[in-house]
Amino acid sequence: MDFSLDPRLAADTLFAAQFPLCEVRVMNEARYPWLVAVPRLPDAVELFGLASQDGEQAWAEIQALGALVGGLPGVGKVNIGALGNMVRQLHVHIVGRHEGDPAWPGPVWGHSPAKPYGPDEASVLIGKVAALAKRF
Amino acid sequence: MDFSLDPRLAADTLFAAQFPLCEVRVMNEARYPWLVAVPRLPDAVELFGLASQDGEQAWAEIQALGALVGGLPGVGKVNIGALGNMVRQLHVHIVGRHEGDPAWPGPVWGHSPAKPYGPDEASVLIGKVAALAKRF
Repeated sequence: MDFSLDPRLAADTLFAAQFPLCEVRVMNEARYPWLVAVPRLPDAVELFGLASQDGEQAWAEIQALGALVGGLPGVGKVNIGALGNMVRQLHVHIVGRHEGDPAWPGPVWGHSPAKPYGPDEASVLIGKVAALAKRF
Repeated sequence: MDFSLDPRLAADTLFAAQFPLCEVRVMNEARYPWLVAVPRLPDAVELFGLASQDGEQAWAEIQALGALVGGLPGVGKVNIGALGNMVRQLHVHIVGRHEGDPAWPGPVWGHSPAKPYGPDEASVLIGKVAALAKRF
């Protein structure tokens, strides 16, 4: 079976770039720089279910995306999470946080409805992710 | 500077085992099988800040702990998260979830006060973690 992106993930996010393993998308939520990395593997659900080589590649991509988000202006802490309680398809959140952001110090997941980006507002972040993908 | 466990992490958790990189502890919260892996590195805050070899070791230990939790009776999904908004010392949560658990489908972090284990109630889980550590 081929990989296809879960429809809810597709609806909640904007395409940014293809990495060797993951499709990386930007959560359509202007209050946090928030990436979602989705391994292009059919039926993947748990990180520990990945084959060894896929797991190492996922780790490399997550680490690089974490560093990207951690280096953005105003980010004080990066939250990384693989939950999958609502969308079962394996996906990893990489979220830039700072003291005083709307959900701080709690998690962003389930905090409040997203505030979508305005036209072109996500383009700088998407451009950074796309530039990172070219170095992989 | 030597590693020392953050006092809040120490207070909220029970010691389970030393892995090659991480001290692994059980959250003192009887409603979820919930492990916390703490790399024994002074001043570690972000996963992406780990040196390459430490990062690979952290990944191997997180994967193994995820598989352990995922194999426990009644666990339907494993949540893995590195947040660090409240306790800055790098620590990774590995939490066994199931549909209908108290926080489902939201995250456990910040959901409600923990319900501590009774005497010896955590010993089976601690024993499994300790057995896994011996195979590393």
